[in-house]
Amino acid sequence: MNRRDFSLGLLAAVPAIAFRTVQSTSQLRVDGRRVNTHLSELAQFGKTAAGGTNRVAYSDADLQARQYAMKLMRDARLEVSIDAAGNIVGGRAGSDSALKPLMIGSHIDSVPDGGSYDGQVGSMGAIEVAQTLAENNVHLRHPLEVVIFQNEEGGTIGSVAIARGLTEKDLNIVTNSKKTIREGIRFIGGNPDQLASVVRKKGDLAGYLELHIEQGGILYVETRDIGIVEGIVGVYWWEVTVAGFANHAGTTPMNQRRDALLAAAKYIDAVNRVVISIPGRQVGTVGKIQAFPGAYNVVPGKVITSLGLRDLDAAKVQMVFARIQAEVSQIERATGTKFEFKQVNASQPAPTDPRIRNTIAETAKQLGLSTKLLPSGAGHDAQEIAALCPIGMIFVPSRDGISHSPREFSNAEDITNGVNVLLHSLLKLDALNLT
Amino acid sequence: MNRRDFSLGLLAAVPAIAFRTVQSTSQLRVDGRRVNTHLSELAQFGKTAAGGTNRVAYSDADLQARQYAMKLMRDARLEVSIDAAGNIVGGRAGSDSALKPLMIGSHIDSVPDGGSYDGQVGSMGAIEVAQTLAENNVHLRHPLEVVIFQNEEGGTIGSVAIARGLTEKDLNIVTNSKKTIREGIRFIGGNPDQLASVVRKKGDLAGYLELHIEQGGILYVETRDIGIVEGIVGVYWWEVTVAGFANHAGTTPMNQRRDALLAAAKYIDAVNRVVISIPGRQVGTVGKIQAFPGAYNVVPGKVITSLGLRDLDAAKVQMVFARIQAEVSQIERATGTKFEFKQVNASQPAPTDPRIRNTIAETAKQLGLSTKLLPSGAGHDAQEIAALCPIGMIFVPSRDGISHSPREFSNAEDITNGVNVLLHSLLKLDALNLT
Repeated sequence: MNRRDFSLGLLAAVPAIAFRTVQSTSQLRVDGRRVNTHLSELAQFGKTAAGGTNRVAYSDADLQARQYAMKLMRDARLEVSIDAAGNIVGGRAGSDSALKPLMIGSHIDSVPDGGSYDGQVGSMGAIEVAQTLAENNVHLRHPLEVVIFQNEEGGTIGSVAIARGLTEKDLNIVTNSKKTIREGIRFIGGNPDQLASVVRKKGDLAGYLELHIEQGGILYVETRDIGIVEGIVGVYWWEVTVAGFANHAGTTPMNQRRDALLAAAKYIDAVNRVVISIPGRQVGTVGKIQAFPGAYNVVPGKVITSLGLRDLDAAKVQMVFARIQAEVSQIERATGTKFEFKQVNASQPAPTDPRIRNTIAETAKQLGLSTKLLPSGAGHDAQEIAALCPIGMIFVPSRDGISHSPREFSNAEDITNGVNVLLHSLLKLDALNLT
Repeated sequence: MNRRDFSLGLLAAVPAIAFRTVQSTSQLRVDGRRVNTHLSELAQFGKTAAGGTNRVAYSDADLQARQYAMKLMRDARLEVSIDAAGNIVGGRAGSDSALKPLMIGSHIDSVPDGGSYDGQVGSMGAIEVAQTLAENNVHLRHPLEVVIFQNEEGGTIGSVAIARGLTEKDLNIVTNSKKTIREGIRFIGGNPDQLASVVRKKGDLAGYLELHIEQGGILYVETRDIGIVEGIVGVYWWEVTVAGFANHAGTTPMNQRRDALLAAAKYIDAVNRVVISIPGRQVGTVGKIQAFPGAYNVVPGKVITSLGLRDLDAAKVQMVFARIQAEVSQIERATGTKFEFKQVNASQPAPTDPRIRNTIAETAKQLGLSTKLLPSGAGHDAQEIAALCPIGMIFVPSRDGISHSPREFSNAEDITNGVNVLLHSLLKLDALNLT
């Protein structure tokens, strides 16, 4: 018989805790079929014709999906509540009252026309871990909190509320649901007047662990089972304005032009050249562009474009930015234009805890899974929670590296592996005193 | 006494024609103050806060300006009518009934938020020439037609109507006035049901001469008084679509990207490089661009941009286009993207008549004005009329080469010089048999 049959057989008779040791839980496995079924069921809320998920925070689909998740959490014998910020929290008592909670979780809101895995794998995975613990009557030393953070895609709003508090400005942001964040919080059962009650301080949590799809193609291309996240990169965005001079595209000789779009083109090429010329895994992206007046017969006089840089090392981002600036000075001289950079976002890198990384690596090894240490290029709730406690993240492969798209996909076996790594990493962390 | 006083004094007594020869008209001069006053008065119709002119075809301002122009034409003793296409035609009889008319004119509609000189200088200049002839009782051998073409800026609609006829498709185009061309023609007093009546055939006109501002900076930069137009360049436009693959800007490593905007940037730079690498006066412009989805955090999967090429020589445009295509093939390979070019405009070059060019040159020389032979990079009504008869164009300098802008400006002295060149070139052409 397998471990699970064994433990289930004993459940009714004696307190399971008496029989449980790290040794005795090592054969525990989550129910892979169940967690993948839950993912399929969850995907019905906001399902799109393209086969993806449109479940922006505070939409009807979001509300329904949250009700579904809460039902699963209750099935997993978690004590379910919605905090004032609208996060769903499922609590489970620990055996040592002196210890702070370990937290696991993710989010179930999606980008507009997104996929059915981003956030959802980690959310269903965390609930599956809780259910596996419950079914096998495994008690942790630490209290456990399974959290479904609200509105991750709109700026990790739920985890910001916990880690540093939402501002009036945050609450007034109009989201993709057309509701403000304040209205959205009420809509999903929170109370925007009592947000102070959800803010935690450093040391209030023992640790945070999040399972997530990679959203990039590294694990998929290199055929590794598990990604061990080194940290979540800092994300820096600038709005870039290029000023030239608009003139008639027929009558203005080439040498009399101050073409803002030509200058912008040289800049976009330079961003790519600088970013790839420096060893490392930094990325640089120009995602937006608009030319004014934007007509066939007018040399563009103005362009508004963008710059996005990400890396685990803030100093490296500054170095890349400085090199881009040097290229821009040359472009300005060559084209008779003027560039202006206005920073619109600067989230700092959030490194994961080395002890948690080691724990994940050891766990994967014991489960016979290959691993790869890699940065998270995307932002996550873990990034905010890093201000409160040591964090760790586990990645599973994304087919073709595609994310935020109906084509986003991770296969069931990879997902099951990831949930098992989450379970056993949690069990190992429970044995440590991280804080 | 000067020539003008002399002729005015004789007007009432005897038919002036008996006294007029090319010799005797050589001292004639237009009234520079008057034509510049007319330009200022015309500029009141559709005057903008920025000091420019917003007088798109078929607008109320256009209608009022046309009424003003017709009054000036009647003052200049022209027989004024509106043809079925809405062009204003001022006729003046010639002395030789065997000759076809010489035509002079331009347009008074503007681009949205344009200037007060484009088209307007040639229109007021042509009326001034007629008035000078009338006041001095100068009779031409050829009949004279002073034409204000309607809706030049919306695609030389009035001259197309005369030179080759408007199609149903043309008539259904919605213009900047929000009216279709059909509705616009009715609005300005034409009759879209009788358009066949305005179409002329090759040989119906003896010649066409148009005065215009340069709209570019060649005369201004080189401080020449008069531009002698070699021809009107062919204008070729393509809509360019770049297909890459949209992906997460944080999670997609640089070497796994198929960035449509990076490819478009390399293309824009290549267009410029190819165009300036070939000797000649061809111009190439990328004026439009849009990236999809167009967000900070997404590698653009698609870009829609443009290509505009212009030259006097259609074969040269084809050669430039072929070289751009060769560059594009390399960019496709380097970036993993695919380009598609869809031609959306192809107007053929329209050379001016060498005899008319010589006449303008000789006239300018006699008036003590410096000249420069140059192409017209912009389209003009003359381009259409070239299908019917020999054409010529006279340019005056545009300050800083600026056009289609409230900052468009030509000074009064240059304008007066241009109108005098128009007058004396017309007188010289009247002595020739061009067709």
